[in-house]
Amino acid sequence: MARIVDTSEYLIAPDPGAQRLTRAVTGTDQNGAAIALNVVEERPMTIFLNSQEIVTAMTIGDYPAYLALGFLRNQGMLHKADVITGVDYDEELETVVVRTESQTTYEDKLKKKTRTSGCAIGTVFGDMMEGLEGVILPDVQVKTSDLYALAATINRTPSLYLEAGAIHGTVLCQGDCPLVYMEDVGRHNAVDKIAGWMLSENISADDKTLYTTGRLTSEMVIKTAMMGIPVLASRSGFTAWGVEIAQKVGLTLIGRMKGQRFVCLAGEERLIRDADPAQIADEPKKSGRKGSAA
Amino acid sequence: MARIVDTSEYLIAPDPGAQRLTRAVTGTDQNGAAIALNVVEERPMTIFLNSQEIVTAMTIGDYPAYLALGFLRNQGMLHKADVITGVDYDEELETVVVRTESQTTYEDKLKKKTRTSGCAIGTVFGDMMEGLEGVILPDVQVKTSDLYALAATINRTPSLYLEAGAIHGTVLCQGDCPLVYMEDVGRHNAVDKIAGWMLSENISADDKTLYTTGRLTSEMVIKTAMMGIPVLASRSGFTAWGVEIAQKVGLTLIGRMKGQRFVCLAGEERLIRDADPAQIADEPKKSGRKGSAA
Repeated sequence: MARIVDTSEYLIAPDPGAQRLTRAVTGTDQNGAAIALNVVEERPMTIFLNSQEIVTAMTIGDYPAYLALGFLRNQGMLHKADVITGVDYDEELETVVVRTESQTTYEDKLKKKTRTSGCAIGTVFGDMMEGLEGVILPDVQVKTSDLYALAATINRTPSLYLEAGAIHGTVLCQGDCPLVYMEDVGRHNAVDKIAGWMLSENISADDKTLYTTGRLTSEMVIKTAMMGIPVLASRSGFTAWGVEIAQKVGLTLIGRMKGQRFVCLAGEERLIRDADPAQIADEPKKSGRKGSAA
Repeated sequence: MARIVDTSEYLIAPDPGAQRLTRAVTGTDQNGAAIALNVVEERPMTIFLNSQEIVTAMTIGDYPAYLALGFLRNQGMLHKADVITGVDYDEELETVVVRTESQTTYEDKLKKKTRTSGCAIGTVFGDMMEGLEGVILPDVQVKTSDLYALAATINRTPSLYLEAGAIHGTVLCQGDCPLVYMEDVGRHNAVDKIAGWMLSENISADDKTLYTTGRLTSEMVIKTAMMGIPVLASRSGFTAWGVEIAQKVGLTLIGRMKGQRFVCLAGEERLIRDADPAQIADEPKKSGRKGSAA
């Protein structure tokens, strides 16, 4: 029987018991019997950069300030040079406002674009690709023994996923130690919340690994590279563009990591293969984690 | 051994052999051995409504016209009264332009909003909720025997998911018969492509069921209701807000449907429980479908 992990070693661990994050609902099962179950919350949260409305994200609603900061940073809307003077969360209005000392170049660009073409909804993606241009990821090494240890610890950590399902997890790790484990219903909110935490706490990315339960899409790879993290590992699969960007930017990309198996499709040179896969236990049949097309 | 389904009975079936939808990539496995695998493509596609740029979606790139039409319709940007004069797809520019006879009320609203608040990125969500106000779903019935038959057929249908993973599927069904099976890397593109097909072919939603591999989030429930489809079933779990909206709008919402098990959290009154769950085979251990937090 797999032991449950002691989460006191995390800097931030999932909080599956938090009342605000799940709701008890009732319905019927396949036999028509009444059942009650806990499902995860999902709330709209509108992110502003100063007076500029940026996006409405669907989130479980924990760590709104980290979500806003991380989103703006990962989208290339907030730069290292921008001095943040405050982050104001209004629970009732479901808004987070990130304030900077002076107007950001992004706001300036958005105003120009809005004047010339009517609106700028579609620019979000272009800005993300632009932001990648200056990224150089550190020339570090990562041990496969650490990756196996991380996967085993994370999969046994009590989480909203194990409690209520229908949610994604992303974990910031160092060596064989998971540090910050964020969960969210929104596709990329979990990784944005980690980025916001790193920005707030001024954490170096050089010696970190990012582990996620979600797919390795272009957006996931871009966000990881924008954060400066050199290694991204996942239980799930790849998209072609995610692989292409990882190869271009020199990110170590590992997917389909389950039990002893994994596939490395970019940044192979960082791997130190110090673990014998044959010695790694396969996942128990009733492993909590199932997602693959996530 | 589960038999493979004959896809000639579908109006549109997945096309896992299509060269344009997957790419062969090479890497290493856990033993350091070179491996080659097929991964799904992911391309940006920018959708325009007349001269108005609306959004850049990440998609596998099949059925761009259906994607654009369905997205605009499901977001409440394109109404039944709007006369569509053309849909132009430019593969090189990665754009789809949906043209209408006269300017839509959405473009008008967007221009006003852009003038007053600088931009209108965040309005997308508000418009979706507004669009739900007039929705009345038909008072039809759905047999649990049909739902079980659909799940069994869909799970044995050759698909990009089974070929390359990391992709979602949504299937428009009638009775026990799956009609249109769309797949996409983008979170809600598969359902938008079905909406676009229904709009193009002028298909009634009253007697249809939508089956999806993804989670039953607010957005998924809203889109299904906007399409006028009374029943939404999924292998995956729920979010609280998805359940709440389904209950409000009177949509039959069925989740966690695997083998004989399922949970109904809204619209129970449409169900005819004509199948004995005990007679339904459990899924084989090596079932193609795994996703739960999708």
